[in-house]
Amino acid sequence: MNTTPTSSAATFFDLKSGLITGDGVEESVKLLSQLEGLFHDEAAWRKMDPETVVYRVRFWRPVPDGTKGGLFWGATYLEPGKVGDEYFMTHGHFHAIRDRAEYYATVSGTGALLLMNEGGQTWSQTMTVGTVHYIPGGIAHRVVNTGNEPLVFLASWPSDAGHDYASIRTAGFGKRILERDGMPCLI
Amino acid sequence: MNTTPTSSAATFFDLKSGLITGDGVEESVKLLSQLEGLFHDEAAWRKMDPETVVYRVRFWRPVPDGTKGGLFWGATYLEPGKVGDEYFMTHGHFHAIRDRAEYYATVSGTGALLLMNEGGQTWSQTMTVGTVHYIPGGIAHRVVNTGNEPLVFLASWPSDAGHDYASIRTAGFGKRILERDGMPCLI
Repeated sequence: MNTTPTSSAATFFDLKSGLITGDGVEESVKLLSQLEGLFHDEAAWRKMDPETVVYRVRFWRPVPDGTKGGLFWGATYLEPGKVGDEYFMTHGHFHAIRDRAEYYATVSGTGALLLMNEGGQTWSQTMTVGTVHYIPGGIAHRVVNTGNEPLVFLASWPSDAGHDYASIRTAGFGKRILERDGMPCLI
Repeated sequence: MNTTPTSSAATFFDLKSGLITGDGVEESVKLLSQLEGLFHDEAAWRKMDPETVVYRVRFWRPVPDGTKGGLFWGATYLEPGKVGDEYFMTHGHFHAIRDRAEYYATVSGTGALLLMNEGGQTWSQTMTVGTVHYIPGGIAHRVVNTGNEPLVFLASWPSDAGHDYASIRTAGFGKRILERDGMPCLI
């Protein structure tokens, strides 16, 4: 645990853009090629440039992964776009330690937060500037950009939560957000 | 644990003012009379209006206090002002479960985050718009408004962290932020 006295904050966030900067901030980029099997229209997915950036995550881990009682914080920048009639979205995950919760807070853009319990029951919450979403333990979470600009949201989660992506790769979410007559629909 | 499907976010935050609103948001107001013994100039404290609002905290507890793995979130509005030569500040606390961390993120105003380990060693971090502060487990934290406008910051912390105010009431912090020649100094 880092208890070294330090007189400067290690990260900064821009309230308009959501951009996180500072020492120790890591960035992870997710390309379309890394999201194989996620979108229902596989033919449309194959026709697109595999190098297309779908989202970036910038995060700060001030303590090692797995630290009990610690917290991480980050920002996700989800690009606008579609694969066929399905909006760009994050992979989505449960936490490896199931009872660990998470907060999302929307900084810019418009979208939907897909939530799913372990029984596969799926629902959504609308994300617009200023909405704050509590994701309880045991609930898988995925974000969908239903707008025309990047969807940016902040997140805070326990440093021992871990990620379970495999359950989502295997079974997906119970519902998808698809475009129907120009409107996003939960189907 | 609340896993009831709900289609709306329960809270909202204003990125400019930091104001948290929505169902289930609670507010706690701290008056000068409730901060007896905190400021070093007790005579100056006695001369002031005891009903003076020093700070308000608005917070959202989507799960019961003490829930393992859960998170709370809130915003603090710390008024500008002084008691003698000492700036308005929050009471400050350790977490009852010592290894629990916390994040502070500054939305508006200027101030100092006072941090202290259990040995009494005290240091400070400057708070300005956009600074993000990680408070590791085992570290007491207090915020001081050194500016002329309200200091507003967001916080996120584990729902089982609890608060230990008594240690601070008894022993205080190792250092104070006092005005010296018009400037805030850590003394």
